[in-house]
Amino acid sequence: MQPVHIAVVGLGYWGPNLVRVLHELEDAEVVRICDRDPRALAALHRRYPSVPTARSFEEVIADEEVEAVAIATPVGTHFELALAALKAGKHVFVEKPLADSSERAEQLGAEATRASRVLMPGHTFLYSPPVTLVRELLLEEALGEIYFVSMSRVNLGIHQSDVSVAWDLGAHDFSILRYWLDDVPERVSALSRSCILPGVADIAFVNLQFGSGTLAHVEMSWLAPSKLRRTAIVGSEKMVVYDDTSNEPVRIFDSGVVLRDPQTFGEYRLTYRTGDIVSPRVDTTEPLALELQNFCEAVRGHVEPRSTVALGTDVVRIIEAVERSLDEQGAPVAVERARASTPESAD
Amino acid sequence: MQPVHIAVVGLGYWGPNLVRVLHELEDAEVVRICDRDPRALAALHRRYPSVPTARSFEEVIADEEVEAVAIATPVGTHFELALAALKAGKHVFVEKPLADSSERAEQLGAEATRASRVLMPGHTFLYSPPVTLVRELLLEEALGEIYFVSMSRVNLGIHQSDVSVAWDLGAHDFSILRYWLDDVPERVSALSRSCILPGVADIAFVNLQFGSGTLAHVEMSWLAPSKLRRTAIVGSEKMVVYDDTSNEPVRIFDSGVVLRDPQTFGEYRLTYRTGDIVSPRVDTTEPLALELQNFCEAVRGHVEPRSTVALGTDVVRIIEAVERSLDEQGAPVAVERARASTPESAD
Amino acid sequence: MQPVHIAVVGLGYWGPNLVRVLHELEDAEVVRICDRDPRALAALHRRYPSVPTARSFEEVIADEEVEAVAIATPVGTHFELALAALKAGKHVFVEKPLADSSERAEQLGAEATRASRVLMPGHTFLYSPPVTLVRELLLEEALGEIYFVSMSRVNLGIHQSDVSVAWDLGAHDFSILRYWLDDVPERVSALSRSCILPGVADIAFVNLQFGSGTLAHVEMSWLAPSKLRRTAIVGSEKMVVYDDTSNEPVRIFDSGVVLRDPQTFGEYRLTYRTGDIVSPRVDTTEPLALELQNFCEAVRGHVEPRSTVALGTDVVRIIEAVERSLDEQGAPVAVERARASTPESAD
Amino acid sequence: MQPVHIAVVGLGYWGPNLVRVLHELEDAEVVRICDRDPRALAALHRRYPSVPTARSFEEVIADEEVEAVAIATPVGTHFELALAALKAGKHVFVEKPLADSSERAEQLGAEATRASRVLMPGHTFLYSPPVTLVRELLLEEALGEIYFVSMSRVNLGIHQSDVSVAWDLGAHDFSILRYWLDDVPERVSALSRSCILPGVADIAFVNLQFGSGTLAHVEMSWLAPSKLRRTAIVGSEKMVVYDDTSNEPVRIFDSGVVLRDPQTFGEYRLTYRTGDIVSPRVDTTEPLALELQNFCEAVRGHVEPRSTVALGTDVVRIIEAVERSLDEQGAPVAVERARASTPESAD
Repeated sequence: MQPVHIAVVGLGYWGPNLVRVLHELEDAEVVRICDRDPRALAALHRRYPSVPTARSFEEVIADEEVEAVAIATPVGTHFELALAALKAGKHVFVEKPLADSSERAEQLGAEATRASRVLMPGHTFLYSPPVTLVRELLLEEALGEIYFVSMSRVNLGIHQSDVSVAWDLGAHDFSILRYWLDDVPERVSALSRSCILPGVADIAFVNLQFGSGTLAHVEMSWLAPSKLRRTAIVGSEKMVVYDDTSNEPVRIFDSGVVLRDPQTFGEYRLTYRTGDIVSPRVDTTEPLALELQNFCEAVRGHVEPRSTVALGTDVVRIIEAVERSLDEQGAPVAVERARASTPESAD
Repeated sequence: MQPVHIAVVGLGYWGPNLVRVLHELEDAEVVRICDRDPRALAALHRRYPSVPTARSFEEVIADEEVEAVAIATPVGTHFELALAALKAGKHVFVEKPLADSSERAEQLGAEATRASRVLMPGHTFLYSPPVTLVRELLLEEALGEIYFVSMSRVNLGIHQSDVSVAWDLGAHDFSILRYWLDDVPERVSALSRSCILPGVADIAFVNLQFGSGTLAHVEMSWLAPSKLRRTAIVGSEKMVVYDDTSNEPVRIFDSGVVLRDPQTFGEYRLTYRTGDIVSPRVDTTEPLALELQNFCEAVRGHVEPRSTVALGTDVVRIIEAVERSLDEQGAPVAVERARASTPESAD
Repeated sequence: MQPVHIAVVGLGYWGPNLVRVLHELEDAEVVRICDRDPRALAALHRRYPSVPTARSFEEVIADEEVEAVAIATPVGTHFELALAALKAGKHVFVEKPLADSSERAEQLGAEATRASRVLMPGHTFLYSPPVTLVRELLLEEALGEIYFVSMSRVNLGIHQSDVSVAWDLGAHDFSILRYWLDDVPERVSALSRSCILPGVADIAFVNLQFGSGTLAHVEMSWLAPSKLRRTAIVGSEKMVVYDDTSNEPVRIFDSGVVLRDPQTFGEYRLTYRTGDIVSPRVDTTEPLALELQNFCEAVRGHVEPRSTVALGTDVVRIIEAVERSLDEQGAPVAVERARASTPESAD
Repeated sequence: MQPVHIAVVGLGYWGPNLVRVLHELEDAEVVRICDRDPRALAALHRRYPSVPTARSFEEVIADEEVEAVAIATPVGTHFELALAALKAGKHVFVEKPLADSSERAEQLGAEATRASRVLMPGHTFLYSPPVTLVRELLLEEALGEIYFVSMSRVNLGIHQSDVSVAWDLGAHDFSILRYWLDDVPERVSALSRSCILPGVADIAFVNLQFGSGTLAHVEMSWLAPSKLRRTAIVGSEKMVVYDDTSNEPVRIFDSGVVLRDPQTFGEYRLTYRTGDIVSPRVDTTEPLALELQNFCEAVRGHVEPRSTVALGTDVVRIIEAVERSLDEQGAPVAVERARASTPESAD
């Protein structure tokens, strides 16, 4: 297939990774790099001297050679930039979260549908091989009924000054939950604290309730003694621990509780079943490469992207609900549902 | 000092441990063992043939040789048995939780004061050397301001059929929090699920807010892929990880965030400080031995017990608030405060 | 079956464990406990008041009620006591190592054969469920050709003052190797040092070469920063790590090297195969209980004991070779072979 | 200081790392890259288009702009290339091991002295911050008398086809030992096996004896179930574990054995002292950057390099002794001593 001609916009912390990975993909060609900061632009230009630079976004979307734009700018600018790019007929890859409100995320989705262009939010964890492996276990119903999911994503740093830990780290865990469970929680409640910067929550404890009965808890923190990325998924048949910092990122525990029939007088008899523990071999391809490959294939019309606008919008809805719960001192609040008219629902 | 003559009542799961440890203490002598179940009684009698048995509690408290009673019966019976023992002039050690309601816990406290007898709830973790070591760090303010505490106490089993995971495991963590922070949370919110037995919550996620600003989160579960006992205490100066399943149960991280003065235009500059990690040597004495020794010394009038009625009553109040929050679908609820007339407040 | 009437001789560090475990076995009854030290005897008598005591070994073997003797005395006394017991018509269980020289071990074996009595050396690790599980993997040839075995058995303490680390810890590892590989090494070489007590080696590095080509290395030490019990068995098809201090004592790695046919000009092409890692469920029965049960069944004539005199004698031969190599400054020395006339060879 | 103009020769597995790191050093400038394989040359040229290439070594040493040559070619070519470069007046950095025989290593040293040029073997681990930290502990005698060192360096892969595991991995561990102990072992004995490729030992167990009494053991393997880089250094006062794969690469155990004065009748009384465990903060600078910076400073005449020709030659002598012991079926052999006339001895 013809390489997709992509411009990368926003060369701060994450943008250079997009450039590096796209550079190595056969199906992509970086045709422009763009940042308002001349130093960031110059630094990357030194590494990729053959790629033309642009200091203004207008220049990028006016460039006819550019088929697609990859946006890695601050969250507050996603909506405006993505909308302009779609209106200019470009395909758009936009870093997570898709937009800073679900209403704007929906608007972007509507515009992509109208313009028949690919719009894909950058939820990289959906392309992480261990996450995919767990998704397959869940599709096969290997774990039985899912009782609960417990997630910890904590380490020391890296504080953001513009968004809370829920907008930053939460976007990862909520996208994973949405992908694994194919579901949006009905209600969430949350507690957080701004320990370091006033008004910027840097720790949060979030509870989520799904219609199926599944519960989830997410602990997220930029303030923790040591890095911890541990997710436990407990089902009626098996249990899984996923830890992307481990050499064995997925561990499957063939353990559970066996409930014998209730005895007379309401006595229950339980036994615990503990079996083998298996660490399946997990592919080590870089998730970002798989993600951008998926984007290129979607642009060429071969596939639906795995990371859909519907999913990206749902993630924003969950974050909004978390923020609402925080405003109401931790009261449980309902997560807004996708409206019937949302383009993705029409799929 | 003269050995305290103690009767142990309730020989189910935990009672035999009380007998074993009291048997080895120089300052205690087990003068009676008591259980309604003749098999439980006979089994222990075989191990300690010289200790007289009793099948009725009345027999125990009528025995003049008995100075103190250690109660390890189901939670629902604590109030009645402890009250009767106090009224009979016995000192009372009662396994956690002190009673099945805070009102009853207060009544027991009032009766102990009236009768001038020691009443001590069995919060064994208060005597665990790693917990004590952390308490000392906190007293010295070595950690700085306490931002948050995150606790996980999960494993596969052991389901209780009469009480929820909050009454069972929660009693441990809430007693540790009360001891460390010398404070009772103002509000709690909780989410739980009864996965195995109808009506018996076996997993719970509990958020706690303290007046000082400190947050805490406790995850408790009888359903988990592997045993996890991990508590992180994050302060402005240092962070501590406490894990009672580890060979290094306390680890002190000399790490934190340094916030430089706000710059012009509201820009903050943060740096991360990571220093040495120290695993202090921790004494390995069995907590139960330290606890029962403390009880004997309290009976002899030498000391106030570390595990006070005030603390035990506060723990019950926290559990009650958790249960109320669960009844209200996870709404944050206030924890009841100790009334001024509570005997312990008078200390 | 009728319980075997056993006397336990030697109540130092290990003997009380024998008494405890035999006490709980249905097929055994402890009919005598014996030690020359009245304090040791009295201490155990308090725990088991119904078991008669004896201060002299003669008394024990003169007692007609005693069918079998379990010997847990210092190594230097094994030969004399076991021989006297066999001559008195008793079955004999003797703690490892069987005797302080292979010649004496052979003599004991010959006497047992002559007297038609069971003689069983106490190599407890042969009854450890993880060791048994690895043995089964090896019997099935699941690992392919065994390239090498690397064993570390180190911790801080417990120094012996009468025997070297090779006689103490080595007896464990050499018994495991003999059991797993069903083979005795042809040659051993060793290096050791007496760091703390003059003349008592407390660390040793031992290399072993088997006729099959398999190599083994054993590191043993009473002086180590932390307890380490790690054995790696590397085969052409799979690799196994056995660690008896871990919750997952056996881990099977489906990994290896694939050698493609030699290319022209002697170029080889290798690829590395890494597959799943499995931690099989391992039974948690106490090895000592399985071992003593096996002894009782052997006494009753139902089975050959797993821990044979032939194995126990081979272990002593390996230790003797280690000591010879140490005397010759680490030169490789041959391990003496069992003589054709050894009773066990006749099996 | 003026940047040192360096040519990098050999662009196989390691050479590109030299180019990358030199490229980022302010005190170095890569002025040539050289390889006989046009593909290797072209691949690197694409990444560094401004650096001139050379296909012949002669071209490199004839280039007057080249002040120093960094050699990363197969071991068998080190001698010839380094000698020619020195004779051409260039300073020389040569990857470990310095040469394929100690005689040739000495010849190179003599030539460097004669030509007044820096010759530095690339023993990167001497620049690894955890190794340096342990070296400082040893210089301060913080560990007391060093009883023994136990090293494991094992993983699955990467087989070399031209040299044995001792020449490859051994060069690392022997350089660390030489650096830490400032000493060369008197005798070594070794056992190895060629499991995969005929004639290429891929596992080896090496014992080393130092004149001070210190013992060392090194296990090295390209065939192991999982990566293990664990070194324990046991001293009379403290013990250290160094593991360069860990987040806490150095751990200091304040533990040991206390020997009380011998009692009457030759009884010794030992007690075990276990204190705190400290994981000091360790700098995370890339060792290769520190090493090449050290080379540049040596070229400019500011410092003696840490990795000296004397050390590099000793490492080759130890490897030669290992190979001799292997030829003699594991017999202990003496390590050849540096001759008085060796230039480095004159320092």
